[in-house]
Amino acid sequence: MIHKNTHILIVGLGLIGGSYARALHKAGCHVEAIDQNPDSIGYALHEGFIKAGSTRPDPEMIGQAQLVILGLYPKVEIEWVRQYQHLFAPGTLLTDVSGVKGGVLDVIQNFLRPDLELVGCHPMAGREVYGVRNSTDAIFGAANFIVVPTDHNTEEGIQTAIELGALLGFSKVTRLTIAQHDEIIGFVSQLTHLIAVSLMTCNEDENLQNYTGDSFRDLTRIARINENMWSELFVMNKAPLLAQLDAFQAQLGKLRQMIDQEDFDGMKELFRRSTARRALFDR
Amino acid sequence: MIHKNTHILIVGLGLIGGSYARALHKAGCHVEAIDQNPDSIGYALHEGFIKAGSTRPDPEMIGQAQLVILGLYPKVEIEWVRQYQHLFAPGTLLTDVSGVKGGVLDVIQNFLRPDLELVGCHPMAGREVYGVRNSTDAIFGAANFIVVPTDHNTEEGIQTAIELGALLGFSKVTRLTIAQHDEIIGFVSQLTHLIAVSLMTCNEDENLQNYTGDSFRDLTRIARINENMWSELFVMNKAPLLAQLDAFQAQLGKLRQMIDQEDFDGMKELFRRSTARRALFDR
Repeated sequence: MIHKNTHILIVGLGLIGGSYARALHKAGCHVEAIDQNPDSIGYALHEGFIKAGSTRPDPEMIGQAQLVILGLYPKVEIEWVRQYQHLFAPGTLLTDVSGVKGGVLDVIQNFLRPDLELVGCHPMAGREVYGVRNSTDAIFGAANFIVVPTDHNTEEGIQTAIELGALLGFSKVTRLTIAQHDEIIGFVSQLTHLIAVSLMTCNEDENLQNYTGDSFRDLTRIARINENMWSELFVMNKAPLLAQLDAFQAQLGKLRQMIDQEDFDGMKELFRRSTARRALFDR
Repeated sequence: MIHKNTHILIVGLGLIGGSYARALHKAGCHVEAIDQNPDSIGYALHEGFIKAGSTRPDPEMIGQAQLVILGLYPKVEIEWVRQYQHLFAPGTLLTDVSGVKGGVLDVIQNFLRPDLELVGCHPMAGREVYGVRNSTDAIFGAANFIVVPTDHNTEEGIQTAIELGALLGFSKVTRLTIAQHDEIIGFVSQLTHLIAVSLMTCNEDENLQNYTGDSFRDLTRIARINENMWSELFVMNKAPLLAQLDAFQAQLGKLRQMIDQEDFDGMKELFRRSTARRALFDR
């Protein structure tokens, strides 16, 4: 149960960590934060959505935390927990935000102190800009929150994570296994970024913006991409992601053939199927 | 010059034809329409954005037209002009809206009466719904209008087409040759639809909408696709379109290789380039 006196600690006060802080503060929770960047901590203290902050892993702050949100990139998340978990009080619940779970969740849970618990979470929300100054709780409202329970988790810990998703304002909270999560994220999130980048960089025309319509803008919005975070995610999720990419390329190849062979019936049938499936996504 | 007494005739009162009618009526012009569908004509007369309408090619209406907008699919456009051009008065200016110019503009201009003129236009605007009841002049505001002059056109005819684009409210009017138009449209408009459809249909998971984020929705908005219009456009623009598709697939293949080989430097360099190019499109 998360209540107004629960000490929430956010490690990594970036776009997502900052957005969590704003949302939880608005919900009346007690939020503190640790981030290497003094500007981030100073900004959040000034804005008032954290009650205390530190630019170093303050032992007292960490020791008092009851619910911890690791708002860090996957590799950094693993190393931070490895280095500082000895400072947590027994019974502390940790959650994260990383976009890939295999190679992160299982790794951490294998060295985590037995009296601590980490429940993997993935807030399916974001913006193409970064940092705490761009954080906003508005990104959670119409989005999906995924909780990734494993054998290392208790039902109580899982329920608290689900409660966290609801508290943040997510419209939908789902449970997936590590394998399911990585496969699905490979498809709906990572492959889409690969497509956007390829579309953006396969044509050198300097004046495309004069001729473009909304479809091109829509497909390339996410071509504005954080190179550090995404290159790491793609490689960490290599196997499921490349499988999804191959499936997509194969389908596009089939469509190419239909056009080449002027198979109108085949195309129309496919387009009707596409239209019907897309209707499932309209909110 | 288009003025308030210019008799404008719209042949084909669908989404685009209807949107033209609304915009031109709002600008104070005299607009009439011909469409096979009595409901479309009745609706537009009732709403008041056309002054007269007919469900058949009324000779008097056609004979009085000074500026004609052919709001028809490419193949229908060709046949309609072939069948009814004899009804136009000398000096009538025709324009169209078709999404492909090669195989349409050149074909028509080769059999068009010498005392008539057709200036090819492409309003780069649309919606995923169809029909006059969904038409709206709001779709032109932030969009691009392309005029496609050929050797068959006079400078006066071209200027009138440019004026039409401005009158409709387009934020940008550009001139392209048939070949340039079809190559660019193959890339920014048609390829994007092929990608969206392939993404929508390459994964059979029934519950994707529970896990999706904005990136997937954005990339598949246009997966809701009019199967008749688009299959026709793709085949008519086959050569340029398949060339663009191959370039896209090659780039995606290079990215696949970078992930497989864990080439972080290569990926980051590509992502920075992608981000820089995307910035050109922000309005």
